[in-house]
Amino acid sequence: MPDYDLHHHGDREVEPGLVDLAVNVRLPRPPAWLRDELASALDSLAAYPSTVDAVAAVAARHGRASSEVLVTAGAAEAFTLLASAFRPRHAVVVHPQFTEPEAALRAAGHAVSRVILSEADGFVLDPALVPADADLVFVGNPTNPTSVLHPASSLLSLARPGRLLVVDEAFLDAVPGEIESLAAGHPGVVVLRSLTKTWGLAGLRAGYVLGPADVVERLRAVQVPWSVSTLAGVATVACCRPSALEEAEKLAVAAEADREYLVSGLAAAGVPVLGDPRGPFVLVRVPGGASLRARLREAGYAVRRGDTFPGLGPDHLRLAVRDRATTDAFLAALRL
Amino acid sequence: MPDYDLHHHGDREVEPGLVDLAVNVRLPRPPAWLRDELASALDSLAAYPSTVDAVAAVAARHGRASSEVLVTAGAAEAFTLLASAFRPRHAVVVHPQFTEPEAALRAAGHAVSRVILSEADGFVLDPALVPADADLVFVGNPTNPTSVLHPASSLLSLARPGRLLVVDEAFLDAVPGEIESLAAGHPGVVVLRSLTKTWGLAGLRAGYVLGPADVVERLRAVQVPWSVSTLAGVATVACCRPSALEEAEKLAVAAEADREYLVSGLAAAGVPVLGDPRGPFVLVRVPGGASLRARLREAGYAVRRGDTFPGLGPDHLRLAVRDRATTDAFLAALRL
Repeated sequence: MPDYDLHHHGDREVEPGLVDLAVNVRLPRPPAWLRDELASALDSLAAYPSTVDAVAAVAARHGRASSEVLVTAGAAEAFTLLASAFRPRHAVVVHPQFTEPEAALRAAGHAVSRVILSEADGFVLDPALVPADADLVFVGNPTNPTSVLHPASSLLSLARPGRLLVVDEAFLDAVPGEIESLAAGHPGVVVLRSLTKTWGLAGLRAGYVLGPADVVERLRAVQVPWSVSTLAGVATVACCRPSALEEAEKLAVAAEADREYLVSGLAAAGVPVLGDPRGPFVLVRVPGGASLRARLREAGYAVRRGDTFPGLGPDHLRLAVRDRATTDAFLAALRL
Repeated sequence: MPDYDLHHHGDREVEPGLVDLAVNVRLPRPPAWLRDELASALDSLAAYPSTVDAVAAVAARHGRASSEVLVTAGAAEAFTLLASAFRPRHAVVVHPQFTEPEAALRAAGHAVSRVILSEADGFVLDPALVPADADLVFVGNPTNPTSVLHPASSLLSLARPGRLLVVDEAFLDAVPGEIESLAAGHPGVVVLRSLTKTWGLAGLRAGYVLGPADVVERLRAVQVPWSVSTLAGVATVACCRPSALEEAEKLAVAAEADREYLVSGLAAAGVPVLGDPRGPFVLVRVPGGASLRARLREAGYAVRRGDTFPGLGPDHLRLAVRDRATTDAFLAALRL
C-alpha cells in the first residue's frame, strides 16, 4: 500500500470563501472566445464524439504525424492508459511529482519504484538515480510540485532501447517558448500534454499524448470508446490555433513575471522558495508548515499541502502563482 | 481474435446528407432547458469536476445509497472499469448485444464465452444457456440490437452467489414505466444506465452504474480521476429531476407509438421485424440485406448493419425509430 495519499489533489483544499492558491489552473474561467465556441457546440451533442479533427490539429501544432497523437480526457486518462497497456517489469516514478502516474500504476497492479530527487540539490534531475533496468519511467517537466524545469538533454539521457520514458508536460505551455519540450518527437519518449491549466478547462477534461505510433496504437486499444467528449475535441482544436498559441505565450510571459513577483515577496517575508521555479507555482518549506497552512485557511487562503507528495513532508507547501493584487494580499496574510 | 468488428458502431455509418436511422440517439440535440444549463456551466469549467451532486441525484432518483452509485463518462466507461477491476474466471456475454462489453473484456486480456440467443425464439433470454460456472455475465435490457425486453424475473434467475450479473439498461428509460428494470437493487446485480440516448447527449458522455457498494468501490478504484466532466455532472443532476423524468416518460410513450407505426409500415412493406421490439429501434432480416443497405444509402438513408453483432449476419439491419414523417419517407424509399 502507498504510504502517501496519492489521490489527494489541490481541489480538495479549496472551499467556497477561500482564495485559491492550491489549484494550479491559471484562469478563473475559459476565455470568452473559447466559451463561445463551446456554447456553439452544445447543439451538436447528440452525435457521438469523434477526435479526428482534434488529432489533426494537435499533429499540425507539434509537427507530428496523426498516428503519433492520441487525444485524451485530460492527461489523467493517459496515466491509466499507460498503466493498462503496458506490463512493465520495473516501473519508476521520479518524485516529488504529480502522484496520479504512480496511483494509476498501482491500481493496475504494477509495483513502482520511487526515485526521490534531492531537495538539497534543488530537485535537479540526476539521471544516474534511475535504475538501469527501469523499462517505464515517469518524469514531470516542469515538475509539479517543485516547479523545476529539467533540461531536455537530461531527459533524453534517460531514453534508451527497451525503455519507455514518459514526460508529463502538463505545465510546459506555461513556460515561455516551451523550451526543453520533447513534444517534437524522440525514440522511446512519450509526452503528455494538458489544456486544463492554461485555458481554465479542468472541468472539461482535455489533453493529449504524443509518442511513437506503435505506443499510441497500444494506448488507443485500451482507451474507453468515445472517452473524449465533443466539447473537449472542440476545445483541443481551438487551443491549437496559432492565435491561441500566441495568447498562451503571452499568458506564460505574464505568469513568469507574476512568479518573480511572488518569489521576491516570499523572500522578503523570510520564506525562500525551493529549487529554481519555472512553472506557474512555487514550492516552499516552512517550519511548522502544517500550522501555517491552517492559519492561512483561517485568513482566507487555501494553499496546497506538500505532505501527500513522496519526498516531501508537512513543512512543504505549494503556492499557485496569481496576479499581483492576489499575491500582495496573500503575502500580507502570511506576514501576520 | 474476435471474428466480428466489435468496435463498429452506428455512428460510423452516418455521413452528411444521409438521414440517420443508424444511431440510436433519439433527440437531434439536447432540449433547450438542458442546453441552457450546460451553457451556464461553461463559466465554471476552470474548477476540477466533482461527481458529488450527480451521485446524490442518481441515488435519490433510484432510491439507492450514494455508496451504490458510480457516475461514469457514458456507459462505455463502465464496461472498461468492470473489465479492469475484476479478473473473471469465466466471463460470458449474452448476444446479440452491444459489442463494447465483449471488446472491453478482451482488451483487458480476459477470455469471453458467447451465449447466442435464438432468433427462432425471438431472442428471448434462456437462462439455461448461461454456463453454471460463469462468474461475470453481461446482458442488455432492452437489448441492442434486438430491441427485446427481458423479464426481470428471467434476469434475476441468472443472479447467484459468486457471480456478477451486469445488466446494461442504456435504453431502459425509453421503455414506458421503466418496467423490468433492476435499478432498485438486487444482490450480485450491477445495472448500467446512460443519459445519452434519451437526452441527445452522446457527445457529452454521461451515464452511471448502480450496484452493491463493494462493487462500486472496486470500480471507483480503477476509474480515471475526474473522468466525468463538469458538464456531464450537471447533465446528470438535471436529468434526474422529477420534471426531466416526466419528460422522459412522455418521450418513451411517444417512441412506443412511433415504433408501432414503423413496425406496421415494415410489415406492410413485406419486412417483418424480429422478436418483440420494446426499445426505440427494431431489428429486421432481409434477404440480400447488404445490397439493400447499399441501395438505401443511395436513396439517402443510413441504417445500421447487423453483421458486426455476434449471432447476426449481413441480412440483419437495425433501424432507429424516428418520427412518422421520417418513417413514411424511409418506407417509401424501402419500397422502391
